[in-house]
Amino acid sequence: MTDRFLRACRREPVDRTPVWFMRQAGRALPEYRAVRQRYGLLEIMRQPELCAEVTLQPVRRLGVDAAILFADIVLPLAGMGVAVELRDGVGPVVDPPLRTPADVDRLRPFEPEAAVGPLLQAVRLVRRASPVPLIGFAGAPFTLAAYLVEGGSSRDFLRVKAFMHREPAAWARLMEQLTDATVAYLRAQVAAGAQAVQLFDSWVGALSPADYREAVLPHVRRLIAALPPVPLIHFGTGTAGLLEQMRAAGGDVIGLDWRVDLGWAWERLGEGVGVQGNLDPAVLLAPFEAVAAEARRVLDAAGGRPGHIFNLGHGVLPDTPVDTLKALVDLVHAETSKRKD
Amino acid sequence: MTDRFLRACRREPVDRTPVWFMRQAGRALPEYRAVRQRYGLLEIMRQPELCAEVTLQPVRRLGVDAAILFADIVLPLAGMGVAVELRDGVGPVVDPPLRTPADVDRLRPFEPEAAVGPLLQAVRLVRRASPVPLIGFAGAPFTLAAYLVEGGSSRDFLRVKAFMHREPAAWARLMEQLTDATVAYLRAQVAAGAQAVQLFDSWVGALSPADYREAVLPHVRRLIAALPPVPLIHFGTGTAGLLEQMRAAGGDVIGLDWRVDLGWAWERLGEGVGVQGNLDPAVLLAPFEAVAAEARRVLDAAGGRPGHIFNLGHGVLPDTPVDTLKALVDLVHAETSKRKD
Repeated sequence: MTDRFLRACRREPVDRTPVWFMRQAGRALPEYRAVRQRYGLLEIMRQPELCAEVTLQPVRRLGVDAAILFADIVLPLAGMGVAVELRDGVGPVVDPPLRTPADVDRLRPFEPEAAVGPLLQAVRLVRRASPVPLIGFAGAPFTLAAYLVEGGSSRDFLRVKAFMHREPAAWARLMEQLTDATVAYLRAQVAAGAQAVQLFDSWVGALSPADYREAVLPHVRRLIAALPPVPLIHFGTGTAGLLEQMRAAGGDVIGLDWRVDLGWAWERLGEGVGVQGNLDPAVLLAPFEAVAAEARRVLDAAGGRPGHIFNLGHGVLPDTPVDTLKALVDLVHAETSKRKD
Repeated sequence: MTDRFLRACRREPVDRTPVWFMRQAGRALPEYRAVRQRYGLLEIMRQPELCAEVTLQPVRRLGVDAAILFADIVLPLAGMGVAVELRDGVGPVVDPPLRTPADVDRLRPFEPEAAVGPLLQAVRLVRRASPVPLIGFAGAPFTLAAYLVEGGSSRDFLRVKAFMHREPAAWARLMEQLTDATVAYLRAQVAAGAQAVQLFDSWVGALSPADYREAVLPHVRRLIAALPPVPLIHFGTGTAGLLEQMRAAGGDVIGLDWRVDLGWAWERLGEGVGVQGNLDPAVLLAPFEAVAAEARRVLDAAGGRPGHIFNLGHGVLPDTPVDTLKALVDLVHAETSKRKD
């Protein structure tokens, strides 16, 4: 097994910069589309063999240095008694959404084996079969709360922010429950074999630094502190104004989107932490020449320092050509191998 | 006329911190809703007396320290031969959108008097009647291009970014034409009486710093350099990773959204520039206690330095209570007047 991904998480020297892609499983791969012709998203996540297969597809096809479990971040919410669906072309839909303090009190504690048993079985299967490390993952409390309160994706997150400002006590209870659930969920993934985890606080960039500090940071800090000692990647988008606080909340690696220069971000984060990212996934829709130029820019900004994991700044977009993904993996490996000569 | 707004733009001492709100004209005001019962948005912008009236309503009602012309940033696009509409509850719609290099070549040069004569007449009327300075404004080239290529508002701006990456030559021509149009538009507003201007690069935060540097900055720099010597506020959202570059592009004042700490942002921007912002407009939907706390946090971060203009981090949201806006203006004036004792 190549362990350059785990070595990079620990900021140890690596033979080549490791590379994987958020949302590498799914979407862009023809073999995934073939599976999807026969099965719905939730069906895949509830059938261990299928879920393991889809998780491993990008490892075989693209040569990435890590596998990430095929799942959706809203998946554990069903186990808390929330009516959640994954609608094709829409994304997660929570209906009815959570809108009142009483709704918070109706959430049930999350019990991993009961709620996501088949997914944990998929973790065991992947771990046995994968030639690269397996990353488990979960949504962070704010991002889960955003789905719950907004009822799905959102552009400006007004409802979840309104709830946060109007109902501070219920907000704190909500964040505590989501923190407890996420700790249990990630612990179960690690127990089943995940060798690293990524915490997706995808939408936390909607908040002001002051709101993050008060309403989010303490919960994420408690969450990360309660996890087993595997490497943790702490990721969000739109976080250029929040990086120091995300670092304070925890994580061995901070995941960057594309809206921030990687070199400057790493300077701000300081010693003792790795960084992952930060190629704009939109660039992968352009001719490969443009992709290569951007990839080299990211590698230059990282400067070959131990602790850099190459990735996009957010998930692979649905229309991304699979050849571009493959060529990008090869380019990162070739460029960073050359550097060591 | 109180000139504390213009004094702050020039970083001169002021008796109180000036305050105004992006989108202060419209939406939240009952007298505006009364006008809107009888007239469409474009009708208002095409009737000088009505447009002037709506521009002055928030000055009377809220006691803000500046008036901003009531218009939409896509308005000048019609004068370039673009089919643009303002749809209620949707926003600007460009149909057909601009999608090819040939579409760029079909854009017509912008001639202010022919294209927006009534709006310029409204500027003259407001200037005569207003007890506070009048701010003219325009969309910046990237943000206008985003509306043109996306066909309206967007969440992830994939189409405009794809155009930028796939058609660099046509992109440069597009930015040049939009720059020329915006220079002509803002010059005409200043000639008609606008005492300051704000350049809205509202969506530029969708770009990576590298893309901004290459595909946007040179055009904005040329634009700002070509304007008459009135104070210019350079504003965008999601720009925490772009502030130094926006400063390099130009502007006497940099407008901040809420995703960045104002004190830290000002440090990065350095001496010789003012800042405007940065209260999250979503907070204004909460009880006034929360609004007051956030306002004080912004004022503390500014620390009473000359050159701070109090504003929200983006436009007033439609459901904002007018009493909250009024109380916020009063609070900013009271708190900053107290500080001088």
